[in-house]
Amino acid sequence: MLVNGKHYNTIWIDENDPGTIHTIDQRKLPFKFEIIQLKSFDDAYNAIKNMVVRGAPLIGVTAAYGMYLAIYKYNCKEHIDFYIQSISNKLKSARPTAVNLEFAVNKVVEKLKSETKIGKKVKVALQTANNLKNKEVENSKKIGLNGLTLMKEISKKKNGKTINILTHCNAGWLACIDYGTATAPIYLAHDKGIKVHVWVDETRPRNQGARLTAWELNQHKVPCTLITDNTGGLLMQKGLVDIVIVGSDRILINGDVANKIGTYLKALAAKDNGIPFYAALPSTSIDWNISDGVKEIPIEERSENEVKYMEGIGKYGFDNFLITDKNIKIKNYGFDITPSRLVTGLITERGICEANKKGIEKLFPEYF
Amino acid sequence: MLVNGKHYNTIWIDENDPGTIHTIDQRKLPFKFEIIQLKSFDDAYNAIKNMVVRGAPLIGVTAAYGMYLAIYKYNCKEHIDFYIQSISNKLKSARPTAVNLEFAVNKVVEKLKSETKIGKKVKVALQTANNLKNKEVENSKKIGLNGLTLMKEISKKKNGKTINILTHCNAGWLACIDYGTATAPIYLAHDKGIKVHVWVDETRPRNQGARLTAWELNQHKVPCTLITDNTGGLLMQKGLVDIVIVGSDRILINGDVANKIGTYLKALAAKDNGIPFYAALPSTSIDWNISDGVKEIPIEERSENEVKYMEGIGKYGFDNFLITDKNIKIKNYGFDITPSRLVTGLITERGICEANKKGIEKLFPEYF
Repeated sequence: MLVNGKHYNTIWIDENDPGTIHTIDQRKLPFKFEIIQLKSFDDAYNAIKNMVVRGAPLIGVTAAYGMYLAIYKYNCKEHIDFYIQSISNKLKSARPTAVNLEFAVNKVVEKLKSETKIGKKVKVALQTANNLKNKEVENSKKIGLNGLTLMKEISKKKNGKTINILTHCNAGWLACIDYGTATAPIYLAHDKGIKVHVWVDETRPRNQGARLTAWELNQHKVPCTLITDNTGGLLMQKGLVDIVIVGSDRILINGDVANKIGTYLKALAAKDNGIPFYAALPSTSIDWNISDGVKEIPIEERSENEVKYMEGIGKYGFDNFLITDKNIKIKNYGFDITPSRLVTGLITERGICEANKKGIEKLFPEYF
Repeated sequence: MLVNGKHYNTIWIDENDPGTIHTIDQRKLPFKFEIIQLKSFDDAYNAIKNMVVRGAPLIGVTAAYGMYLAIYKYNCKEHIDFYIQSISNKLKSARPTAVNLEFAVNKVVEKLKSETKIGKKVKVALQTANNLKNKEVENSKKIGLNGLTLMKEISKKKNGKTINILTHCNAGWLACIDYGTATAPIYLAHDKGIKVHVWVDETRPRNQGARLTAWELNQHKVPCTLITDNTGGLLMQKGLVDIVIVGSDRILINGDVANKIGTYLKALAAKDNGIPFYAALPSTSIDWNISDGVKEIPIEERSENEVKYMEGIGKYGFDNFLITDKNIKIKNYGFDITPSRLVTGLITERGICEANKKGIEKLFPEYF
């Protein structure tokens, strides 16, 4: 999508130097748009570990390029298989909960097995990373095209008046390679001239809405308004929301949606006001094994400091600020479960389906 | 309630100097507990205007003491009635939306009319301010005692295990004189040895939960845990909330509750999980004229800067720092309406009633 009027992906290989991968340092957004170079396996590992890159699809692709960089820069004649084994384990540990990370690393390792020569391994690793990247772009675009049908329907119902979409957290192109998941239908609609406006939930405690979603929509000139997480209910009461679209960390086969904490509250408000609520996701986010979200999914607890401190720019520049009493106890849960009864549908790369087993099975019969 | 082990009200007259009123500078909490002196009408006016004091009951009482200070320090022999007229108008304009402010000022003005001598007027003004203060304490205590019956019931049902209460914003003693409204049943239960634990919503954008409620509960040794506004739904799904108690800016006679933005979302989650949801309030917060909250109550829009900037302590001390892209558009609504169908009951100074006209009429027949 566009940044300062120029099209970007979140990650790309240097045109002239095959030993350099470029990515955006997302820790500095929205205060600074900084592209950094990954020139070694360690650079890629640290970028994932330190959240320079975040978002499951982007983490996966960065990991694949990390594997490629490791082999490209490998300067021994022997032991490469041991080396690959060891770095792949290290890489997978960088963000243990990200499913795409493990998937991408395993994919590269598997492809490498078919080649014995280092030169060939380098080629295969790069090809696999590129393929993974292209696949993510393709999936996002397909999600966007499928979601676009919803946008067109709403626009028609409203006689072309602006569609108001509410979203939570960042399921945008910054989390992916391009288009995003929840944002993909929005970007495509906007680019096609359908009038859209996005209510962006701030998304405490890490403020991905305020820092990333609002920034990326604004850069692409999609009209948007930042609101606190408390505000969505009132907007729906006032008839100022036509559709809610969120991403998803994990979808269960019964249609329950695990997503950033606070999603459930917005789904309740949508239901209470008769507003459609959709989750947009690639099928790689579907968990084929768990069927009762609230009971079975373990909820990640994160550091107190994410709530206690906040990053921002003060009189003396960028800093991490204490925003409450230091002695207060804090609980910081990462996500919640939106029961399928509150979910109007799932927007996937294969189409839109009902948020239940029957709906999912229709689109993805091979898993059943 | 207790601060550093010592009992405080939010406002009190100096023991030795009748020309000095003490209050807590709430803008500095929780980073600094600072008591400041109001020595003139202007001091009181500025304290209200600049939000040194906040919370409808405390604003009202501060205004009454402000009127008293004005007359106490008045050093002319004549024109006092013009003077009273002029300062009362000025004072009422300090925070135009606070109903209690107008009520308190009018009360003092009315009482002053019956006295002609300045010496007597001073006495009457002080007496009226003291009475208003005592009345607020009495109301809070009664709300607390009425809510205490609920606490006892839940404690009994749980065989004495800790009651988990969720609250939003600050309807604590800092907003009142003592006890608070939503917090009154909690403080009384705690002081009686009933085990309670409070989930405190951060309450963006002004963070009254994180800055005030968590601080005051912690000071009084009431176990509490700060959470982001996104978290309450998950806690209810997990069975970690027994009751929700909030304050209210305005209750309609149909039982609709206007309160700090985000209250509605918690009420929806409480309903969805079968958890009782109560609003605690003195009858002065009941609006006897409006009967459909969502349609009729105008929703206050506040400054973008409350969302864009946040106060906290960085490396170089206290500062106000930018937490999102400066160019992002923001909407900042102050409160929302929780429809009465989501409200289990109202805890008032006269007892607990259903959140509807019939329930309110039973407790307050003189208004019907």
